[in-house]
Amino acid sequence: MKKRLGTQTIYFENPPSITACATVVGKKESEGPLGSYFDTVIEDGLYGEKSWEKAESKLMRTAISHVMHKAGLNFEDVHYLFAGDLLNQCSGSHFAVRAFAVPFFGLYGACSTMAESMSLAAMAIDGGFAEKVIASTSSHFCSAEKQFRLPLEYGGQRTPTAQWTCTGSGAAVISDHLMPPYITHVTTGKIIDLGVTDANNMGAAMAPAAADTIAAHFNDTGFCPTDYDLIITGDLGFIGKDILKDLLKRAGLDISPVQEDCGCILYDKDAQDVHSGGSGCGCSAVTFCGKLMNDLRCGIYSNILFIATGALMNTLTCQQGESIPCIAHAVRISTKAGGHA
Amino acid sequence: MKKRLGTQTIYFENPPSITACATVVGKKESEGPLGSYFDTVIEDGLYGEKSWEKAESKLMRTAISHVMHKAGLNFEDVHYLFAGDLLNQCSGSHFAVRAFAVPFFGLYGACSTMAESMSLAAMAIDGGFAEKVIASTSSHFCSAEKQFRLPLEYGGQRTPTAQWTCTGSGAAVISDHLMPPYITHVTTGKIIDLGVTDANNMGAAMAPAAADTIAAHFNDTGFCPTDYDLIITGDLGFIGKDILKDLLKRAGLDISPVQEDCGCILYDKDAQDVHSGGSGCGCSAVTFCGKLMNDLRCGIYSNILFIATGALMNTLTCQQGESIPCIAHAVRISTKAGGHA
Repeated sequence: MKKRLGTQTIYFENPPSITACATVVGKKESEGPLGSYFDTVIEDGLYGEKSWEKAESKLMRTAISHVMHKAGLNFEDVHYLFAGDLLNQCSGSHFAVRAFAVPFFGLYGACSTMAESMSLAAMAIDGGFAEKVIASTSSHFCSAEKQFRLPLEYGGQRTPTAQWTCTGSGAAVISDHLMPPYITHVTTGKIIDLGVTDANNMGAAMAPAAADTIAAHFNDTGFCPTDYDLIITGDLGFIGKDILKDLLKRAGLDISPVQEDCGCILYDKDAQDVHSGGSGCGCSAVTFCGKLMNDLRCGIYSNILFIATGALMNTLTCQQGESIPCIAHAVRISTKAGGHA
Repeated sequence: MKKRLGTQTIYFENPPSITACATVVGKKESEGPLGSYFDTVIEDGLYGEKSWEKAESKLMRTAISHVMHKAGLNFEDVHYLFAGDLLNQCSGSHFAVRAFAVPFFGLYGACSTMAESMSLAAMAIDGGFAEKVIASTSSHFCSAEKQFRLPLEYGGQRTPTAQWTCTGSGAAVISDHLMPPYITHVTTGKIIDLGVTDANNMGAAMAPAAADTIAAHFNDTGFCPTDYDLIITGDLGFIGKDILKDLLKRAGLDISPVQEDCGCILYDKDAQDVHSGGSGCGCSAVTFCGKLMNDLRCGIYSNILFIATGALMNTLTCQQGESIPCIAHAVRISTKAGGHA
């Protein structure tokens, strides 16, 4: 008997637990509305390193070390580590994970990576292949701007549709413990590309992928939006969030009463001047591992659908005139282990 | 009951089958010793596209289309596609997979990606989450040289330790069919970095990662080298292959009677002037999906250990003086489904 529902969704017979989470963020993120939910704040973007790239690796290294400490794990207890980031060849993760003697699967899902790593971690556990797995991702404003956009020293104007790459890393221990919250379902996205070519408007590019995955989730499972306390996308930002709401309304799904976006709540819209919101792998990672995990544990939320979204272009594909392929992966998290649709 | 052996190895209760494979290679690869094993040969590196990057995506798109045709699959039959490549942000895969409406997990394991994708595909199937999964990867000599080394037009001298990035893509359908060969065990690698900093000698950098994973495989399973007809690494090349043999001998393991390396057999050492051998994600992918799959089906091999190896640096980490973190993932493939250690 396959643990499948419809075309894109799986459910877990023994839903894996999210046992512990840890977060590290930059100063700007700590000054935003979610500041109190984060474990560690770095005051300086270099974090004691000689480059932003090395600092980004240290963010992830710190988050993973911290979550292992919280969960009381040694290297030999961690059966797999799933991680990825935005840097070329995912070097942020590799130079972080190098410090840990654990079996490693490297991922690239752009800003969808946190949901991708949680999906595969949960599959490894419910499949019987592991007891404890770590899922992690990171991003850094300075390394991302340098790699994808313009030298910071140039001081270029950002467009109104641009988003601000989060400096931060989140790490989660997913395990076979019986302790809420649980990952009960995973809806894995397809690559969707509706032809958006503006790399400064990634919310518009990613919204159709989020809509596709969310619609598939409801089609596959029979759940409806009112079954959720919160349906939260990764980092569509303000523009993408509105587009997603409209796309789903046209498909007959009204998620607006429970809709939110990590990119819209990480920074203060008025005071922090991030234009269309936050972005980067770290945005959804620290929002989930910080605020959402806290609210699930405190009973504020019982059922959430977490949909991290990724824009899968690079600078060269943009220069070659290509549009932006996007993807979104959804993970259902519930304080109850049972009750698949 | 977990399906685990030792610290890094899992086995499958119902070993997934490698049902079909397809390969696309460049002209040079078709002129090498394995030329007759490949399905499709492109005569021109641009493959009718306007850039090498677009050509690389077309290589993978062609391989996946072909393997779906061989296995008689439509989009809705493919439950997951696992793929990755060497280009920044894995754009080779994304622009290939965009053509296929299937749930997608993006991976980055550098040249270890074929074994990584086969590992996760097999876990998805034996875990009960899928019936048919495609694993794929690609590389292209021109896009890799342009991105990692020097403009081709510059005509730079290659060092004697350098390897030649394979132009090619392989794709495999892994399924729950009862049809040999089967994936019976997976040993997932840790990141190993012994301090090699020479990006023109990746065989030396990767050999310790291969040795670590192979030693873990034998420790975990109780198998010994004589249980295998072939122990084949991804792309250590001639220098790395010798280092691996020596490292394992020191650890009390003599694999030399059955040792081979995809990078050492893909090109003709004397006639094709590739220095230390082949490399690139495509090297182990086309060798496995072409020659090894053929030889397993023909009964030439009954049990092989396929260890794809990856060097996880990028150009920037080299410029910043970092050493090269490496990884190797091992997959045991057998014509018999039973008999885990």
